[in-house]
Amino acid sequence: MNLNDTIVAQSTPSGEGAIGIIRLSGKDSITIINSLFTSKDLNKVKTHTIHYGNIEFNNIIIDEVLVSVFKEPKSYTKENIVEISCHGSNYIIKKLISATVELGARVANKGEFTFRSFLNGNIDLSQAEAVSDLISSNSENSHKIAINHIKGVFSKKIKQLRKDLINLSSLLELELDFSEEDVEFANRDKLEKLLDEIVSFNNMLLDSYKLNNVIKDGINVLILGKPNVGKSTILNSLLEDDKAIISDIPGTTRDVLEDTITIGGNLLRFIDTAGIRDTDDKIEKIGIKKALNQVEKASLILYVIDLKNTDLKSIKSELNSDFLKNKNVIVIGNKNDLKIEKEINEYFINNKLLQISAQKNDDIINLKNSLNSFIKENLVSSDSSIMINERHFAALNNVNKSIFNVKKNLKNKSNTDLLALDIKYALNHLGEITGEISNDEVLGNIFSKFCIGK
Amino acid sequence: MNLNDTIVAQSTPSGEGAIGIIRLSGKDSITIINSLFTSKDLNKVKTHTIHYGNIEFNNIIIDEVLVSVFKEPKSYTKENIVEISCHGSNYIIKKLISATVELGARVANKGEFTFRSFLNGNIDLSQAEAVSDLISSNSENSHKIAINHIKGVFSKKIKQLRKDLINLSSLLELELDFSEEDVEFANRDKLEKLLDEIVSFNNMLLDSYKLNNVIKDGINVLILGKPNVGKSTILNSLLEDDKAIISDIPGTTRDVLEDTITIGGNLLRFIDTAGIRDTDDKIEKIGIKKALNQVEKASLILYVIDLKNTDLKSIKSELNSDFLKNKNVIVIGNKNDLKIEKEINEYFINNKLLQISAQKNDDIINLKNSLNSFIKENLVSSDSSIMINERHFAALNNVNKSIFNVKKNLKNKSNTDLLALDIKYALNHLGEITGEISNDEVLGNIFSKFCIGK
Repeated sequence: MNLNDTIVAQSTPSGEGAIGIIRLSGKDSITIINSLFTSKDLNKVKTHTIHYGNIEFNNIIIDEVLVSVFKEPKSYTKENIVEISCHGSNYIIKKLISATVELGARVANKGEFTFRSFLNGNIDLSQAEAVSDLISSNSENSHKIAINHIKGVFSKKIKQLRKDLINLSSLLELELDFSEEDVEFANRDKLEKLLDEIVSFNNMLLDSYKLNNVIKDGINVLILGKPNVGKSTILNSLLEDDKAIISDIPGTTRDVLEDTITIGGNLLRFIDTAGIRDTDDKIEKIGIKKALNQVEKASLILYVIDLKNTDLKSIKSELNSDFLKNKNVIVIGNKNDLKIEKEINEYFINNKLLQISAQKNDDIINLKNSLNSFIKENLVSSDSSIMINERHFAALNNVNKSIFNVKKNLKNKSNTDLLALDIKYALNHLGEITGEISNDEVLGNIFSKFCIGK
Repeated sequence: MNLNDTIVAQSTPSGEGAIGIIRLSGKDSITIINSLFTSKDLNKVKTHTIHYGNIEFNNIIIDEVLVSVFKEPKSYTKENIVEISCHGSNYIIKKLISATVELGARVANKGEFTFRSFLNGNIDLSQAEAVSDLISSNSENSHKIAINHIKGVFSKKIKQLRKDLINLSSLLELELDFSEEDVEFANRDKLEKLLDEIVSFNNMLLDSYKLNNVIKDGINVLILGKPNVGKSTILNSLLEDDKAIISDIPGTTRDVLEDTITIGGNLLRFIDTAGIRDTDDKIEKIGIKKALNQVEKASLILYVIDLKNTDLKSIKSELNSDFLKNKNVIVIGNKNDLKIEKEINEYFINNKLLQISAQKNDDIINLKNSLNSFIKENLVSSDSSIMINERHFAALNNVNKSIFNVKKNLKNKSNTDLLALDIKYALNHLGEITGEISNDEVLGNIFSKFCIGK
């Protein structure tokens, strides 16, 4: 990957649309587009301006476009950037890219614009990761966390702690230079205090990691219960209610997934299952086994009971099933629009279990509220403004390990060089998070997950 | 549809991507975005400038964005336009649109930006239609025609002819005012000459209509022949060769359809069929019947013959089949890599029929060249820079009918008021094309075919 190249890519999603955008970054961006743009000399325009005109190549008009010019260093990549806003036809976009390639541009690798933004110091590595998270954010919470990361809330704090540790570490290094004189430049109490602060911050971050999958990928909700208790009806009612809300804004609902809904800013992914019962039917047995296998992966189980066609004894035995032990379970008594036995009604009231009719809209709203409260209390902490990813998790664990060693050596009044070595490890691992320390493999891994054109 | 509203829509295709764009048009566009944009006062910026900053709503940052400002009348709609370039997440785009709607914008109807561009006199109706054609253009020829229409090549000429006719018509009207004095202000020879010019231009345009489906939707090519003569192999070789060329530019090939290729700027849509033979197998019979049904719809038939496993007599009888009569047929002798009978070889050479091996790349390129020449000679005229659509076709036919009446009346030296009436009809129908004359139904029909955000 040659970073002196001028790169080009389509930045809008593929497919027909009103507008398509191709983007160039690099020292020749303006020159290349200028030789295609017949309406004005783009070398003479100011940065952050937009210019209307024709793009022509080999005497054929490719399109009437708007050209946006960003001059280095005032751009995302800190290089010259040109964006062409054209009619959203794949044919035109292909032609535009081909023309720039013939004039010397290279098709960008995945995430290469953001990679250059990182290399040129516009954003750090955890901010770059957040760009990708922001694009794939699909709920209020995943969006909030990605925005906080992009804003650098998290990396600023990491950088500050690392800087403080570097200062103390350089005093330790100084001691090593004067090792024969047995002096202490680095205040050991101050060092210990800083280390504690780092560990406590790290632990807070490490705690947030368990939210990672829940917030980024959504909460897996499994609907369980005996056959014909109304599982699918409940799912359909939940989905329908959600669709009705979403479709308030026409034209924005094209990508709503069939079986996910958003409650309280969290994405819930519902999995409907075969009814669970003793059976001799081979195929049905497989279905039930699959349902029980899903239990392990689910973050939350909606366990549905038919209030009408059952008795209290079997309800109690159902809810005592082994597979529900130690799981997050919300019990739903369905069909409360029918006449139900008094003792069942009382059992549900006494145990504060939900009774609904999947047909009634108010009951579905009640169910959503219960889901929301349960998730807030048990799955997502109320203040999840920062959340680390797997890479951060590994690095922070390594930081804590190194600091543990430093503290042990401090206690044992070990040699300064031992202290300095472990602090260096801690500094390296902290630096990995923001990218102050990086290696090609890690970088390749991060940016390969990006889409083209970002 | 209230045209004083400020409208908003997503202008980029749906789906995750590097960049998403929402667009506002109307008098409040700048005010609405200014109250969401926290980094600068957009009321004070110049037109055609870009501004980096945060969009916040209810104290929550929705995204870091670039805001482009276009001030009336220097914009596509001749109204104030603001475009927000955000991270390409559906969640963010939905949030941005919701925020603008809460501040008074209305979600735009399909094609409403272009509709306003038409109403405010930036483009005429046939140019507006070309915008939609340009977005869906998928080959060199459909692209070229759409660009010519957008540039107004076609409507300029129509407008000029209409203006000339209006001038003569007003002289006729003047005669009517002085009808008692029996004077002739309008030179009848000049009128007749102009009418001839219009009819001849119209006929040229009406001729182009037959190209409409071929160029816009591609050419349907049916591959026919007995079983096992290599039909699918030929198709695969053609597709593969095309794919190899297209994939020179990574990242732009995501939407290549499996069974279409572009030859000489035209999109060819291949339809592979069941082999044709006498059979008693019911299901196979259905397949063969289907293949023969396709013959009617095809613009071109590739008839494949196995050069090896056949004899000259049956080849001749095959090529004499009723279903090939009066069709565009290219005969391909396949498997020429095997040893074939001398008389078959001679028959092919004498009749200038193509012999190939679907395995050989050179032969596939030969086949493509033959296809290209055949299409150029028989299906697409070489200079198809203008092509009218169904609506234009109907209007021009009506123009010709009215002019026919005028000429008849001129010959019969009919009353001036009869001449004037038919000329008025002709003027109305000419005006329908460019939208100088329009009605709500026609407009609704045109713009309902647009995508949202254009």
